[in-house]
This record gives sequence, structure tokens and C-alpha cells, in this order.
Amino acid sequence: MRLAFNTWVYSSFPVWVPSYPLDETIRRLARIGYDGIEIGAAAPHAYPDYLDDAARTEIKRHLDDNGIVVSSMLPAPGGGPGFNVASPLEAERLNAIDQYKKVAKLCADLGGKTLLYVAGWQVFGTRTEQAWEWSREALIDVAAYAADLDVTVVVEPTSADSNLVETCDGALRLMRESGGSNVKVMFDTYHCLYRNEVPTDYVYRMAKDLGHVHLADLNRAAPGDGKVDYKALIAALRDVGFDGYVTMEIGFDTRAVEPDNVARRAYEYIKPLVAGTA
Amino acid sequence: MRLAFNTWVYSSFPVWVPSYPLDETIRRLARIGYDGIEIGAAAPHAYPDYLDDAARTEIKRHLDDNGIVVSSMLPAPGGGPGFNVASPLEAERLNAIDQYKKVAKLCADLGGKTLLYVAGWQVFGTRTEQAWEWSREALIDVAAYAADLDVTVVVEPTSADSNLVETCDGALRLMRESGGSNVKVMFDTYHCLYRNEVPTDYVYRMAKDLGHVHLADLNRAAPGDGKVDYKALIAALRDVGFDGYVTMEIGFDTRAVEPDNVARRAYEYIKPLVAGTA
Amino acid sequence: MRLAFNTWVYSSFPVWVPSYPLDETIRRLARIGYDGIEIGAAAPHAYPDYLDDAARTEIKRHLDDNGIVVSSMLPAPGGGPGFNVASPLEAERLNAIDQYKKVAKLCADLGGKTLLYVAGWQVFGTRTEQAWEWSREALIDVAAYAADLDVTVVVEPTSADSNLVETCDGALRLMRESGGSNVKVMFDTYHCLYRNEVPTDYVYRMAKDLGHVHLADLNRAAPGDGKVDYKALIAALRDVGFDGYVTMEIGFDTRAVEPDNVARRAYEYIKPLVAGTA
Amino acid sequence: MRLAFNTWVYSSFPVWVPSYPLDETIRRLARIGYDGIEIGAAAPHAYPDYLDDAARTEIKRHLDDNGIVVSSMLPAPGGGPGFNVASPLEAERLNAIDQYKKVAKLCADLGGKTLLYVAGWQVFGTRTEQAWEWSREALIDVAAYAADLDVTVVVEPTSADSNLVETCDGALRLMRESGGSNVKVMFDTYHCLYRNEVPTDYVYRMAKDLGHVHLADLNRAAPGDGKVDYKALIAALRDVGFDGYVTMEIGFDTRAVEPDNVARRAYEYIKPLVAGTA
Repeated sequence: MRLAFNTWVYSSFPVWVPSYPLDETIRRLARIGYDGIEIGAAAPHAYPDYLDDAARTEIKRHLDDNGIVVSSMLPAPGGGPGFNVASPLEAERLNAIDQYKKVAKLCADLGGKTLLYVAGWQVFGTRTEQAWEWSREALIDVAAYAADLDVTVVVEPTSADSNLVETCDGALRLMRESGGSNVKVMFDTYHCLYRNEVPTDYVYRMAKDLGHVHLADLNRAAPGDGKVDYKALIAALRDVGFDGYVTMEIGFDTRAVEPDNVARRAYEYIKPLVAGTA
Repeated sequence: MRLAFNTWVYSSFPVWVPSYPLDETIRRLARIGYDGIEIGAAAPHAYPDYLDDAARTEIKRHLDDNGIVVSSMLPAPGGGPGFNVASPLEAERLNAIDQYKKVAKLCADLGGKTLLYVAGWQVFGTRTEQAWEWSREALIDVAAYAADLDVTVVVEPTSADSNLVETCDGALRLMRESGGSNVKVMFDTYHCLYRNEVPTDYVYRMAKDLGHVHLADLNRAAPGDGKVDYKALIAALRDVGFDGYVTMEIGFDTRAVEPDNVARRAYEYIKPLVAGTA
Repeated sequence: MRLAFNTWVYSSFPVWVPSYPLDETIRRLARIGYDGIEIGAAAPHAYPDYLDDAARTEIKRHLDDNGIVVSSMLPAPGGGPGFNVASPLEAERLNAIDQYKKVAKLCADLGGKTLLYVAGWQVFGTRTEQAWEWSREALIDVAAYAADLDVTVVVEPTSADSNLVETCDGALRLMRESGGSNVKVMFDTYHCLYRNEVPTDYVYRMAKDLGHVHLADLNRAAPGDGKVDYKALIAALRDVGFDGYVTMEIGFDTRAVEPDNVARRAYEYIKPLVAGTA
Repeated sequence: MRLAFNTWVYSSFPVWVPSYPLDETIRRLARIGYDGIEIGAAAPHAYPDYLDDAARTEIKRHLDDNGIVVSSMLPAPGGGPGFNVASPLEAERLNAIDQYKKVAKLCADLGGKTLLYVAGWQVFGTRTEQAWEWSREALIDVAAYAADLDVTVVVEPTSADSNLVETCDGALRLMRESGGSNVKVMFDTYHCLYRNEVPTDYVYRMAKDLGHVHLADLNRAAPGDGKVDYKALIAALRDVGFDGYVTMEIGFDTRAVEPDNVARRAYEYIKPLVAGTA
């Protein structure tokens, strides 16, 4: 079980500032002690269209120099192009699938093995069953592409922000229906809280299918500054033999934040639990 | 002085849901009584790349059928592609300029005359002077393109979200430095509140250069549900001879909102002030 | 469109006190002006096993004397016997189905035509698909029984309290899968709020399948003391031709309440909207 | 003095979810370290009618395997059947008495020695003296039955939820009037808080008649997360020679809870006080 940190709070998504270049972000997270970095595929960090081969090589070298690896990558849904795989607009759906593939490629280029999949959301006028079908088809398409890159796609329930895959069983169902051997599931404690559900329930039910974990507390606060029972969560992850990345996805929903501060607080709170020294 | 309503709260930007198709949004705002609609250039409403000529013609007819006009359009900065005209990434800057031009074209195609300009923001590591220069150059480029379409570009100070053009004078300075005869300024009461400034001060200082106004109260609440003095504001607009659109840009920063409710409450509160019946 | 009031706040469910006998409750609601009363099937009001034929005849006469009708009835899930139709315990599932039938019979005996259906909830260790299947089978069984009594069964999404049927489309799907011609759907604004969804979306999507409506605001407050847009809601109900009961289900989750007070406040706020005088 | 934990927060009473099967609940509480488990007689855990002899034997073996004993059992009043021993409905009163006997039998079958007695509540229209008389008669009946099973009945003042036995002296008076040698009293710090009374006052006044104790803080929070002085409380219990179970009855009034978290926090806070190591 290793620790990683998600870059949103250092980027311009979804809140524009504060914003740091990717190289600066890599250096800071490595210095705090994180094993991995989860890079969001948004400007100014890692929008695929903005990064040519030379830029990717440079980022990879910078990661190596700092002794930190890419734990995972994820798209930035909801902005201008939307990237909603369940959109009623065919043009948006096609572009979303294309974007997921570009992010999978970028992920592999940077040495990453895990791509997060947000199943999209239902726009008024679209039936749930139709939205689900579009999302399922997109997942199948993306997963097949990612398989060739040796990248695993993990489906995340995002109840706080969306209305299609909101639960543990919803994510498992989409995973199963995709049929892909490189498709797994993940969860984020923040979305558990939105539904008033228990994070360890997710661990035990996802078990061997669990490929990734996000930690965040109420209001996207750092672990230890909220109400989630992390001691039980880490113990449960150990119970099921989880060997992926426990990743902080915190602090990014407000301009009123010091990125290094939340990154360090989270690390200092969780590291001893994972190391078995607390 | 006419009333318009900004579509964010009906769209997937910045919060993914609730989300309504554009035709449904047009119908609802027209029924409430708005003269104009400010359309955000984001999926699923109006991302330029997703709308071919046929789609634009169809939207235009739907607007006409409902007796409502496009008051203005604006981009959706901060999402995946960023669209930060002051980004340290050249690829992002070029794409941002291109996107503003596409939105200007779409605006003209739909009968609109006003394009909002967000001056971008300074990423850590970029000097203010450099960011300003990039923003100024982008504005000059976009304004020249828009002039041929008979579209006016209005510079908006966005202090709550950015760090480059944050004030009344900052917007006026960028406008002047652009040199474009089709460049004006605008302001949003929400950003005035963020700086604890007085909205009527903006009216009197922008005066003849004022091309557009956004209304929103604390936490993006509807006018009447907060603390701004709208009676004074409307009176000040009348004083300076403002003949543009007073546009509500409200409710969009949370999933916990009924879009029609904030749209109607805002209309019912402001309409009598504008009509001189309250 | 008629107005009804749910009896929980006058009963011992879920909070034990204040508690009034059913005859007293009938008299008070009729005096305030309600057309209908929604009776909860719990002691001391209307637990079927406690009411023999004579008692039912007496209640019916009392209703007639006071000029008020039974708009609907509903079970009281979650107490000792549970009545969870999706329980992992077979004994509980069978008893739940039996209880729904008893309530349907009691409803018909008192002149009511509508039975609410809570689809149950998923206990840890039960898969969603299994819980759904049990709930679907129970609904089919109950609906067939109710059909002979000329009683319609309405499926309610109860997101704030359960985890199986939480959404508009979930309720519609269960309804369709039941195949019963006397099965419809309903919704409660309180549960919309829990999911941060828009009540009018439910109206337009349920439309002709909408058989019943519950009104309640944040914290089960009376309409007018919260944030729901009732003006839009009543207008939407009129749009789709709804001719059932708009029923207040409020105030019951705390001992700190005056039942008559919330009943009267709700009536005075909603009546003019329904009557078209506000 | 031993520590026990009440199962409500793991069950569907009074809030439906989260909900865990009884065997899972037993396993978790034993692992945390509790000596005893207080089982609520509600679905899906232990509604007597749902548990045949085979099921009871299986539960007993599971308890033994996990090294934890049944400290006590209690009914689930207020649900559909009410189980209010002071109800104006004779059918409900008779059924309540019957239910208490069934729970006493189940308690004995599982090896438990203590049955909690909620004295019921006064419904509008019933005189206090009448309600009291019904409750007294019920207690006499139940206690006689329990005596043959070697089960002690403890009367609990429940001021926060009821209006008949609300105080220390009320409980003692009902106990004395029952005349049963296997009738004692208990108290819950949560109900002391509701009346703004001092928990140690209850200890010293109940003294040798004190058979059981519930711990819970403001809003049913875990000990240590509220305002009660547990150090003084445990000391007072030691003063009077209390040798029963100190039982946590916490967290169950909201869906927003992680059961293991409150169970462990409570244990870690109280255990050192009881062990004399803090």
C-alpha cells in the first residue's frame, strides 16, 4: 500500500487559482514524501493536446529525478468540452471517448498504470437506462484501448457530483458489464460521506476488484481534519490485501487553500497508519 | 436596460448536475420573462466544436420561436483545456485565443453582439507583467476578429476566481491598452463583494465604457436573497445611461439548486426595479 | 389537485411523542381545511392488527362526519418487525409482504385508493441486484392483491432513508418491471432535496405515471419555511394534469413540534397556490 | 464493571441504514474488545418472531465463538406495532406485554440476564394516572414471566423520547410499585442531558437498585466527543459497587455514521477509565 497525491489543488481545475506548473508540483509532493502522484489531465498540468513527445519525455525524467511515480491519471469532466460519456450530444460522447484514450496514452507515456473512469451523468431528458448504455459502451471502448497500453481502468462512483454511478454496487455492475479484464473499481471517501455510507463497507464489497482509493473528508478536507475513520479504513484495506495507491484528493474546491499545507497534513496523518507505526 | 439570464446553473459547468439541454433552458427562461439569454460556451449547451451549421440554425429558430435573444456569450475557463490566455504553456494560450474566436463566431451565428473576456490568471512561476502582456495580446487578437462579426468584447474583472484583472481600474486599463474600438468593460456584483467594494462605484467609474453587467449576491445567491443594494445599482445604471443587459449569473456553484427557482426569484425581484414600478 | 396531510407528526412513529388518537387527528385536520388525510399504518392510529371491523366502521363514520377522506395509507418500515421487503431474512420479507396486504385492505376499508410502497433497503452483505429482485417480487405480489381492492400502489424513492430506490428513474423502473396496471410512482420533495435534485424534474419525468406527491422542506419543515420552489412545483403538476393528492409529510422527526402549527402553516401556504389565488 | 455496546447503530432501527446482519455485528464488536453486546429486538437482528430455535442456537454459538456475551436486550418501541404499554388501545397494550415476554425469552435463549423496560408514553386524551397504571400492570406481568427465566427487568427513564417515566425518582417509584424482586432501574446519560441533570446524581440515588447503565453524549455522540464527565461517572459507579454492564447506546439517530468508528472511539475512551489505567 503506497501513498499518492492528486494534483487538482495545485492546478486550475476546478478552481483557477492557486495554480502551479507540473514540474513544481512534482518536486513539492516528492519532497513531502509521497510515493506517487495522481495527475489530472487538465491545463496547465497535463492536457494531452498540449504535451508533445518532447514534453512528455521531460516530465518523465523530472519524475524519475525526484523519485516519484505516476500512480494514476484522470480526466477533467464538466469543463467546456464536457467529456460526459453519457451526454445527449453525440459529438460530446465521441470526443469524451477520444479524450479518455488520449489520457490513457499520456498515462502510459509517463509510466502510469491506472486510468480513472467517471461514468458521466444524466442530463434532463435522457433516461437512466440510455445514459447507462452510453457509459457502458464508452467504457468498453476505452478499456480495450487501454489494455494495449497495459493500463487498468478503474470505475469511480461519484455521487457528490453526478447521478449515474453513485454507489459501490453501481460501479461493480458497470465493471462487470464492461467485460474488460483490465477494468476494476475504486472509491473516494468523500463520495461515501455524501451518501452517508461507510467507507469500510466499500472495501469489503469491492475487495479483489478494488484497484484504487481516494481519501478526502468533509468539504474535501485532509484526512484527520474531518470525521472518517481512517484507522478502520487502512485496516480494512490490509484485510483485503489491497496493494494499490491510497491517494489524497483534497483541498481543490476553494481558492482559500495552501496546497502544500493540505498535502503535508494528509501525509503526516496517514503515513503512520499505513506504516503500522500508529 | 433589459434583463438576461446566464445559463451556467442549467448546464454542466462548473458543477455537473443539474443539467438541462439548451432548448429546454431557452424555453424556461423565455417563459419566466427574460429578454435575453447569456449562453455559456460549454457542453451540453454550446461548445462550438459540437455545433455544426444545422445545429446553430436550429438553436436560432428556437430562440426566435420563444421570443428571446442572445444577450451575450462567454467561454468556460479552467476546465480540461484551461483556456487561460495567460498560461505559461504556449499551446494553451494559442488554443485559448482560438476558442475565444470560435465563441465569437458562434455568438454572431446566434444573433448575439457581446463576448465576455476573462483575462486569464497567473500561474506560479509566471511574472505578473508577462501574464498581463500575454492577456493583452490575446485580447487584441480576439477583438480584431470579433470586430468583423460586429461583436463587442467586454473585459470582466474576476477577483473571486483569478489574480490578473481583479479590479475596476484593471479592466479599464486592459481595455485601453487593447486599443480596440469594439472593446468595453463589465463587472459582476459577486466579484465586487469578494473585494468588499461598492457596485455603484463600478457603474460611475466605468460609465460610458460599461457594456454589460452581471448580478449575483453572496454565494451566488439571487438578487434579493443577499446584501447588495440593487435599488441603488439600477438607479446608478440609469444615471449613466446604460442600455445593455443586466444579467443574472447565479446559483451555479452548487448541486443543491433549483435553476427555475433562482431564475424566477431574480426576475421577480429585479424586474420592478428596472421597470420603475418598485 | 387536492390537499392532504400525513399523520406521522400526530402519531408515535418515528418519534413517540407528541401523540394523538386517530379520531382527534381526523377532527383537527378537517377543521384546518384539508381535503384528505394520509394515515400511517402504525400505532396508535392504524396498525391493521389492532383494528377489527367495528373499529374500522367507526373510523370511517368519523371521517365522513368530518368531511374528510383517506387520501392514502402507508406502512411504518424500520421498527421492530422491520417490514423491509428486501431484507436478507426470509421471515421478514414474508411478513413485510403480508403487512403491505393488510394495509391495502385497511386502506380500502376506510375508503382509500392509494397505498404507498417503500421498496426496502439493502443490508450489508446483500447485493443490490438481489435486494432489487426481492423488492420487485414483493411489489408484484402486493399490487396483485391491491388490484382486487381497487387500490393503486405508488412506488416512492426514499433516498434520505434508504439505498435501493433512490431516484426518479429507479422508481419508474421498478414500476415498469412490476408490470402491474395499478402500479404508479410518487415522489417527496424532501428526498429530492437530500439528493440535491429538482422537484419539477420529477414531475415532468413521472408525468402520467405520477400518482401521489409528498411535500416537505429541509429538515421536514412545512412548505414556505424552507427552500423548495412550490410555485413552480404546483405549476408543473398542473402542466402534466396531475389530479391526485398533494400531501404534507412534515414535522415528524422531532419531539419539538406542535402538530397543528405545522399543519396549518403548510395549508395556508399551499392552498392559495393550488387554488390559483396566489 | 464490564463494557457492552448496543446494536441500534448497526441495525435498521430507528434509522434504516447503515444496517449489518447480527453475525457481522457480533464479530465486529468482539474484535474491538467489548465484553458484552446489547441486542435490540428489531429486524434484521433479533425480532423474536423471525428467529426459530435453530437460528437462536446458531446465534448463541456465534457469540461463544467470538468470546462475547449478551449483556441485555431491549424492545423497539414506536414502530408499526407501537409496543406502548400505556397505549389507549387495549390491543396494543396486550401485544406490547406479549412482545416484552418474547424478548425476555429470546434474551434467556441467548444467555442474557437483563431486559430493559420502557414504561411507555401518554397519548393525548389519556390521563397520566391511567397511563401509569397500565404501565405498572404490564411491568408486573412481564417481571413475573421473566423471573422464571432468571432475567432481571430494568426500568429506564426516557425523558428525551417519552412523557411517563422521565426521572430517576419516577423509575424508582415504578420499580417499587411493581413489587418484583427481579425489577431494578437503570439510566442513560443521554436522557440525563435532555433534562439537564447530573449523571452521578442518578448513580448515588439509584445505588443498590441500579442494574444497568447507558452511555451516550449530546446528539448520541460517543463518550469523549461530548460534554458528560465520564471520569466522575465511572468513579461514582465504583463507589456504589456497580457490577453490571456499562453500555454504549450511540450513533444510531442518523444515517451519517460509521458504526465501527463510534464503537471503537467509545471503547478507547472508556476502557482506560474502567480499567483504572487512565
